[in-house]
Amino acid sequence: MILVNGSDKDHIELSDRGFQYGDGLFETIAVRNGKPVCFDRHLVRLKDGCDRLYIPFPGAELLTLEARQLVQQTTDSVLKIILTRGSGGRGYRQPNTIKTTRVLSLHPFPEYPSNYKETGIVTRFCNTRLGINPDLAGIKHLNRLEQVIARAEWSDPAIQEGIMLDNNGYVIEGTMTNLFYVKNNTVYTSPIDLSGIAGIIRGIIMQMSSSYGYPVIEHNFTKEQLLSADELFLTNSIIGIWPVKQLDNMFFEKGLGAQTMQAMLTQFYNETIKDVF
Amino acid sequence: MILVNGSDKDHIELSDRGFQYGDGLFETIAVRNGKPVCFDRHLVRLKDGCDRLYIPFPGAELLTLEARQLVQQTTDSVLKIILTRGSGGRGYRQPNTIKTTRVLSLHPFPEYPSNYKETGIVTRFCNTRLGINPDLAGIKHLNRLEQVIARAEWSDPAIQEGIMLDNNGYVIEGTMTNLFYVKNNTVYTSPIDLSGIAGIIRGIIMQMSSSYGYPVIEHNFTKEQLLSADELFLTNSIIGIWPVKQLDNMFFEKGLGAQTMQAMLTQFYNETIKDVF
Repeated sequence: MILVNGSDKDHIELSDRGFQYGDGLFETIAVRNGKPVCFDRHLVRLKDGCDRLYIPFPGAELLTLEARQLVQQTTDSVLKIILTRGSGGRGYRQPNTIKTTRVLSLHPFPEYPSNYKETGIVTRFCNTRLGINPDLAGIKHLNRLEQVIARAEWSDPAIQEGIMLDNNGYVIEGTMTNLFYVKNNTVYTSPIDLSGIAGIIRGIIMQMSSSYGYPVIEHNFTKEQLLSADELFLTNSIIGIWPVKQLDNMFFEKGLGAQTMQAMLTQFYNETIKDVF
Repeated sequence: MILVNGSDKDHIELSDRGFQYGDGLFETIAVRNGKPVCFDRHLVRLKDGCDRLYIPFPGAELLTLEARQLVQQTTDSVLKIILTRGSGGRGYRQPNTIKTTRVLSLHPFPEYPSNYKETGIVTRFCNTRLGINPDLAGIKHLNRLEQVIARAEWSDPAIQEGIMLDNNGYVIEGTMTNLFYVKNNTVYTSPIDLSGIAGIIRGIIMQMSSSYGYPVIEHNFTKEQLLSADELFLTNSIIGIWPVKQLDNMFFEKGLGAQTMQAMLTQFYNETIKDVF
């Protein structure tokens, strides 16, 4: 079942600005045992994105109600929420009255081999760069061509993720993940004020990890700095935390940093899952 | 009537990557007396965009056939063609076999006051900047949030267009137009290798204007350089060429440059309209 503005549908008006211009936002949410994980955080990010793009937020209550309709039939799955500026307006100009489109859909939970989490994945640097744009940086919006063409750079199934630099030459994130590296017991990640997405797991790590002995520092770093790290790991809401065991020709071991962050995240899930939904 | 892959429809699958990621391209084509203006050039640009994004081009013949079905019922209108990477794939990863989605739709021709063309329009500088991304620059793709939020900066109906700078601080184009300025009988425009769209009228001017006594030079220029110009004008396929009579607090007169380019464009249309379609 897919809910479009509350009705069971599998299609959208051609005039929807999501289709015409990518004029909207989305969230990809893990559902475990019938409960969307970190649902409250996803809603906060969605509302922040709406505020930054001047799209009226439909309200947490309505989205929660509709999400419940979908996930009650499932144990483990992925809930995707898309919000768009709806139809209308003249060209790029938004309509005087915006009727936000809501699309909630449920997808199978991707089953990844357990060694991705345990020993790490193989990655590569992408040639496609992330554009610099502070007006859109951080937002999980529907303009995702950069990620699509970066992901199209490789088809080797042994490589699970590609790491992207921005047009200033700094390393930012993976095509579908945020990137962290550990050096001398400190965790580093790129700021996302010029490009990149403010991931939910990234946010949890930023907030909690120093109390686990791993303070996080946001800074701009180069390929060379990344390759001299003690360990690397990648995060998103579906995969959680994956260590990197290989980046191009460089090899890494899963370290105490990734291990501690994974344990922290499990504890965080266990403590918060009952609170929401 | 709207044709989606050849069938009369008003909706698109939710799974279409155009909706999910803005993973596609579009063309906005003026139709005059039942003929799409510069149709051959629009098809060439569409094919170029497909090549750059690795989207299979459906072929000029099929698109011409479908366009004919639509425009035969009309005199003056706007033909919009959208091509997307279709449905499927896993996340950003494109499907192994791409089935390009084609959407052709017809819209009323916008009636602008004749003084826009004759004496010029009022414009402003936008605060929203164009991101820098050589991988996507020039392409008329569906990731158009920058233009949407730039256009949302003003609602004063006296202002017809907003001029956008890129994140390097150079002036690039309007939200829906390419920008030219004239200084000492030379026409200048921004390169579109880092951001911006390679407009069809822009291409015609680049190609033909030197034989009308106005060579065009592509160069990076600042706000200040633009404001010291003898005259400014804006171009796109629907409006043709509009002089700028005001940009923020600066006033300009329509000059010989815009006048000559308008005459050249009319002649070009008259000579080429019979050749195509």
